This record gives sequence, C-alpha cells and structure tokens, in this order.
Amino acid sequence: MAKIASQASDFPQWYLDVVDVADLAKHSRVKGCMIIRPYGYAIWENIQRELDRRIKAAGVQNMYFPMFIPQSLLNKEKDHLEGFAPECAVVTHGGGQLLAEPLIVRPTSETIMYDAFSGWVQSHRDLPLLINQWANVVRWEMRTRPFLRTTEFLWQEGHTAHATKAEAEAEVARALKMYEDFDRDFLALPVLTGTKSPKETFAGADYTRTTEALAKDGKVIQAGTSHLLGQTFAKTFDIQFQDEKGEKQYVWQTSWGLSTRIIGTLIVCHGDEKGLVLPPNVAPHQVVMIPIYKTPDERASVLEALEKVKAELDVKNVRVHLDARDTVTPGFKFNEWEVKGVPVRLEVGPRDLAAETCVLARRDTSEKTPVALAEVAAQVPALLETIQSEMLARAQKHLAEHISEASDLDEMIKILDEKGGFVKAPWAGTELDEKKIQDKTKATIRVVSEIKLDKPGKCIFTGKETDTIVYFARAY
Amino acid sequence: MAKIASQASDFPQWYLDVVDVADLAKHSRVKGCMIIRPYGYAIWENIQRELDRRIKAAGVQNMYFPMFIPQSLLNKEKDHLEGFAPECAVVTHGGGQLLAEPLIVRPTSETIMYDAFSGWVQSHRDLPLLINQWANVVRWEMRTRPFLRTTEFLWQEGHTAHATKAEAEAEVARALKMYEDFDRDFLALPVLTGTKSPKETFAGADYTRTTEALAKDGKVIQAGTSHLLGQTFAKTFDIQFQDEKGEKQYVWQTSWGLSTRIIGTLIVCHGDEKGLVLPPNVAPHQVVMIPIYKTPDERASVLEALEKVKAELDVKNVRVHLDARDTVTPGFKFNEWEVKGVPVRLEVGPRDLAAETCVLARRDTSEKTPVALAEVAAQVPALLETIQSEMLARAQKHLAEHISEASDLDEMIKILDEKGGFVKAPWAGTELDEKKIQDKTKATIRVVSEIKLDKPGKCIFTGKETDTIVYFARAY
Repeated sequence: MAKIASQASDFPQWYLDVVDVADLAKHSRVKGCMIIRPYGYAIWENIQRELDRRIKAAGVQNMYFPMFIPQSLLNKEKDHLEGFAPECAVVTHGGGQLLAEPLIVRPTSETIMYDAFSGWVQSHRDLPLLINQWANVVRWEMRTRPFLRTTEFLWQEGHTAHATKAEAEAEVARALKMYEDFDRDFLALPVLTGTKSPKETFAGADYTRTTEALAKDGKVIQAGTSHLLGQTFAKTFDIQFQDEKGEKQYVWQTSWGLSTRIIGTLIVCHGDEKGLVLPPNVAPHQVVMIPIYKTPDERASVLEALEKVKAELDVKNVRVHLDARDTVTPGFKFNEWEVKGVPVRLEVGPRDLAAETCVLARRDTSEKTPVALAEVAAQVPALLETIQSEMLARAQKHLAEHISEASDLDEMIKILDEKGGFVKAPWAGTELDEKKIQDKTKATIRVVSEIKLDKPGKCIFTGKETDTIVYFARAY
Repeated sequence: MAKIASQASDFPQWYLDVVDVADLAKHSRVKGCMIIRPYGYAIWENIQRELDRRIKAAGVQNMYFPMFIPQSLLNKEKDHLEGFAPECAVVTHGGGQLLAEPLIVRPTSETIMYDAFSGWVQSHRDLPLLINQWANVVRWEMRTRPFLRTTEFLWQEGHTAHATKAEAEAEVARALKMYEDFDRDFLALPVLTGTKSPKETFAGADYTRTTEALAKDGKVIQAGTSHLLGQTFAKTFDIQFQDEKGEKQYVWQTSWGLSTRIIGTLIVCHGDEKGLVLPPNVAPHQVVMIPIYKTPDERASVLEALEKVKAELDVKNVRVHLDARDTVTPGFKFNEWEVKGVPVRLEVGPRDLAAETCVLARRDTSEKTPVALAEVAAQVPALLETIQSEMLARAQKHLAEHISEASDLDEMIKILDEKGGFVKAPWAGTELDEKKIQDKTKATIRVVSEIKLDKPGKCIFTGKETDTIVYFARAY
C-alpha cells in the first residue's frame, strides 16, 4: 500500500496522495482532464441521486442540450463572453471539413439554452420555466488538480425563468438553501453563505450567492453557487412573455450549479492523516466487513457468519461490502479501507465467532466497540447516524473556531498565517481595493454577508463608515 | 394541439411529428444536435436506471474518462481510425491558443480507455477488468433525425478485458443477452440477434453481435451491440498481464453499447396513428388522471377523490400524474396524453363520483373499463402488467409474421416492397456481393444467424451451397 504525505506538513501533497491511493481518480493523457475511477464515481453517483431528488422535489425538470455552442451565440452577451472566452475549447473541424462557424464546447449552457427559451416562452402561463441539466463542461485551465480544478468536469446546472424579479430572487434563495441543506445533511459540511463581491460574480449575472466551506488547512473552498441573472440574458436572447394584461415583458432568470469539485471539497474538509473520511450518507460502502482467519475451516465459518450479518444489514438498506479477498492480509485491508474513508469497519475472527461477537471500528474517531453478532443489524443504522451527526458537529465547531475579526490588514495577515479560516470585517471598498488586498494578503472576499451591522463600523481598508460585513479568506 | 401525419401514408413525417408533438425533443441551433425535452429525458432516465442496475448486477463498475482524445491516440489503431476519422469533431484551440496536438471529441472511447488500461493491468489478478461509462459522444452525421441519428448522442459503453478468448466471448454473449432481456422485459421489444456481416462490423472488432428490432413500417433498426475486440487493441496499446505461470500475455477485450437511439426504436416499434405508445415499465407516467367537471364545487370534489386514489397508487409505486390544469379542456388533455403514449388514462366526472366509480382507458387497445374507485389501487398494477405483456406479445407476433424466405433477389425485393421485415436466406457471398445486393434492393444483411442449416441450401446471390443463414432487411 502506497504511503500518503502528512496532512500537517504538506497539505497539497497529502491531497494528491489521497486521491491517488484511495483510487478516486487518475491522471489522463489529456492535459488537465482526470479519469474518475469506480470509487470516486460511486461517490458522484450518490451525490447525483440525492441532489437530483431534491431538484425534482422543487418541480425542476431535467433536460439535455447540445454540448456545442455556435460561436455567434456565445458572442451575444458581452460580459458572459468576456468571462468565458479565455477558457474555451473550440471545435473548428467536423466530418473532415473546416466548419463555417466554430463550435464552442460548453463552459456553461446559458447561451445555448436561452436561445431555445426564447421560442418556448410566450405567455405568463409558460412561467416559471424550471430546467436542470446533468452534463460535462469544459473550461481551459492552466493549473489543475483532480476534482478541485479540471479542464473537463461534471456538474448540474439549473436554469429558470420567471415573470417577476421577486420570483427569480426567491428561486436564487431556494437553490442556495437547497445546496446549504444538502451540504449539511448529506455531506456533513457546514457552509458560510452570502453574496459574492463584484469581482467574483458570475459573468453576466446581477449577483451571485455562494456556499463556502472551510478545509482542514484553513483555506476556503467554494461549493454550489446560485446566480440572479436578472433580465440581461432575456434582453440579449429576446425571451419575452405576454403578462396577464396582455403586455410584453422580459423574463427574470436564474442559474445555479454544483460540480464534481464537491468531491474535492469532501476530501479537504473531512480528510485526516490517514486519508479520506466519508460521511455515511455519501459513502459508497457504509460498512466494510473484514474476515480474520488462518485455516480454510476458519475462513468458511467466519465468512458464513459475515454473510448472515450482511443479509440482515442489506434488509435495513445499509451499504455493506464484504471484503472476502484471500490474496491480501487483513492488515492490508484495514489500511486500504481506512484511506478510502469507509465509516465503519466490522472485524470478525475465530475467537470473536466463538464468543458470537465482532468489533465495530469507527473511521472518524478510531473508536472500537465489541458488539454481539446478533445485535449488529440493530445497532449499525444508529451508529451511522451518530457518525454523520458527530462529523457535522465537529466540522461546525471547526468552522466556528475559524471565524475571526480583524481591524486592519496586518492583523488579517497574522490570523490567516497562523490559523487560516475566515476574517470578518466591515467593508466599504471598491473592486480595485479588493484586488489590492489580494495582492498583499492572498485573501479575497468570499462572501458579503446578508446581515448588516447594527452600528456602522470602519472599513478594514478605506476606514470609511459602513454597515456592510464581509468575510475574507485564502481560497482554493 | 398540433396534428400528426398519418403513419400509414407518411411514416417518416409521422415520426418527426410524434417527436415534436409528444414533446420528446426539439431541434437546436447546432446542426444535427437535438434538445432532449423533459418528457424524452424522463424516458432516458428510466432506461438508464434499469440498464445501469443490470450492468452493475453483472459486476461491472462505472467510471468516467475524458471526452477529449489526443489525435495520436486515435491514430494508433488503423481499422478503428479508418472507421471513425470521417465522423470526428476536432478541437484545435483551447484557452485562446492553437493546441500543439488536436483533440478529438470522443466518437467512442476505446482508445482513451485502453491507453489507461495498459497501466492498470499487470497481473492475472487484475482481470477481468469490467468497466462501464455513461457519456455523450459525437459522430459527425450528414443526415440526422432526432434520436435515430444525431451528431451528439448519449449512451453507455461497456469495456472489458479478460485473460482468455473464451472469457471474452462469454462476456460478449452476456452483454448481448442483457440487451435482449432488457429490450424484451423492459421495453416490450422482441429482437432478432446474431452476428454482423464483415461490412457492418465495428471498426477494429473481430466480430459484432447485435440486437435488431422491427419497426411498424417494416424497416429494421439496430439496438444494442456487443463486440469481440480480440487482441487487436491489446497489441496496439500494449495491455499485457502476467499469467499464473509468470508469462506475459495480451488481454482479450470486449465493448458493448446502447444509446438514446433506443428511444427512436421505441417510437417506431410501438407507435400508432395516434402517436407514441409506451410500455408501462419505461413510461414516465404510467397512469394519467383527468378530472372532468363544470363547476368549482365539482372540480373540488373530483380532485379530492383523485388525490385519494393517487395516494393509494403512490404506495404501490405506480407512477401517476394528476393533470389538474384548468386552462385546457379534458378533451385537450386526452389528446395530449394519447400522443405522449401514457399507458392508462383514468377519468372521473361528477356522475362517476356519485356512483363511486371511474373509467380506465388503455392507450394500447383503446379499451375502456369502468372500475369502482375503491378498486383502482388493487387493479391498476395488474392492468399495467397485462399491458406490458400484451404489447410484447403483439410485437412478437408482428416480428414472427415479418420473417419471410426468398430464393432469389426478385422475390426478396417483392417481399420487402410489399410487407418489409426480414428476409431469411442461405448466404455464401462476399462483402462485395453484399454491397451489390444493397445497391439493387436497398437491403443489407442485418444478422448472420448463429444457427446453421441442417441441410445446406443455395446462396441467394452466388448459388453456392452453404449452411449459413442470414437475415436481410431495409434498415434505419
């Protein structure tokens, strides 16, 4: 079993090692593109299944649009184009011919979708239009890291159109809350939410709401985002409807997305020195069973007992993997499933079997508990719930302990160097001021809080009085 | 509600109308690429869910590979390249720069996958390697039709590597049987299976096994295919393993796939003059409920009764849609859900309600049956099973009635002109002979039967004695 670097001394190398040794993804021959291995893809499938359920519960329907966008369509909305043009992959030849018009491999699908929306929306009765797509997208990246930043990635992109600004804003808030709830309940990830500063707003949007998680190294990572697109694209693509009075109006739009980056987020937020630590809800295997034996007879009887317990757990919808390989030792298996972050390990050897007992070992706390074999099926579901909620509680505590306040930049730098996390401060600066702070501190505004100060404070940069609070952090 | 063309008099136009009016897909701005609408995509999701379950039950694991293939990788296997090069979309620019090496948008993933397999397979203990991918692929097409032939389409592609030819051949057969079973049990589609003639074999394969379905217009349509790749790619990409004796061996490989074309197959095989007819197993809505009322009071009481029945059906996992729109008439709804092929329509009006009854109407037979409201939940699951099995039985009868025999080409042309379907004949011709027949009859060999003649017969083209039987047909 390959070793992984120390998280404490070289976090970036630790990350790459975990991805490799836990067999989540491998490098490919294509620059910046990874191969997602079965264990990594199984995590993505669990994420997809649960998020898709929540998306559909909100009345949003899945569709599929072409991955190619004619260049003229992408060119239509200037801010959007400026934001994405430098990252585009361009198809110039098809079927052996030079194309009359180049095709862009979608970096996001606003333009190809909204061109179609224009024909689909005629009346207020066609609204709201609530669409989602699961797809691959491409953004040309210079420096890539598996899951965190790859040239091709997988995601879902929600796109909605509404009759009024109020309805569109409610949808932006609904999608953001959906991500926040999903992160908390499914991934055991607490997030800070708020609005992006103009510098970090989605290209073409009126504003961007975001969910930001805190990694173990004190850096911050953006998870799902939700954008109010306003009427910008509606005017560009002529998406108009007749309102109840018979008057033509432009629709109000939103888009929101979450990508395979969330797997990187899981790793950096929950991982420890031994590797990945998966919350039970998202884990491909919630329990791994490891038989311990010397003789063929012992093997047969231990496996028989495990098969029996496995059948009982299957009935309770616990995802159990019985690792019956006889080509590697139990110790090798312990290490392998530890790096892979399986929440519970169940060990049974001949002595346990004689005592009709087994050992349950928690991945998150390393705690080991002997349990009667007859009790396992009754106890495991509750144990998984305990692990899920305690992982969340620990992450919440970690987040709360890493929100600091600073009254000037030197103090901010000191905090970021020493413990990382978020630095909360009053803010009245400009986009240029934010850039200056970034140059000096390597930190950016992660969120502008939606809660205003009761008493105005002094802007950390300009010294101006302000009731706006922002959270700075160094980010992935 | 838009009209659809007559199936009997203009089948191609009927097809396009059904896709449009049933709102399965729409044309996009990108040549040859469609937009899959929510109803069409829901059919695909049902297909994915069930086929994915069967794929996983066979021990195959899902992964995800980059969609870009460096041109040098695609160029490595000559037959494969010759087959796909004319259909490729080529990315020449990325991130604003001309790429040092062009990237091909995957037309299929053999080359990008097998380049990686080479590093993953070292020992016989790494075999069999059983991988599947759900992805979008691009093949540049001149003449396209939604679902049946599109430049971009969605599919799954299975790729496996084995220690012996026998194991690889068993996997080719397993995948073919999986498609055959899936088509029959889930889609109510009987298929003819067999081997493709050399002319129609997958580029780079030793042989291709296929499932071929019969459309209502007498033309034949290829569904899933399963290829024995032999050791061709193993030698090209150097995929070797150490066998139990410590000797180096090349692996034996297979690949197999099924695409969104299967939705086109469903349409042309089950559709009728009124539009789409969906087998209950794959239908997004198995039952649509239509309330009939005049006054608001009637509406409230009818909806209340339907909600109650819906809750009972939900418990039985029947997929029910209550169409409570009050902006269109019941007649409009009847037409809409008929074109969309929903297996069962449940109607309730005030008089039905007074009698505590409702009407169940079958889409496939137009049969209407009054049923007590209290009995609906008990009867519908059995009714859906009946519809599913009767649709299969009718399709099987249609197939059996459209397998004809011919002793010469004139007879074959006569059969194909008059009733279509398959023409079964002895065959000892060459690839060139097959091409000549195609020029004359517009028919190709759809399958070479795996069953040999007991007594040799005369080849329909060359007159030579042969025990090989083939099935000709005009195909999509």
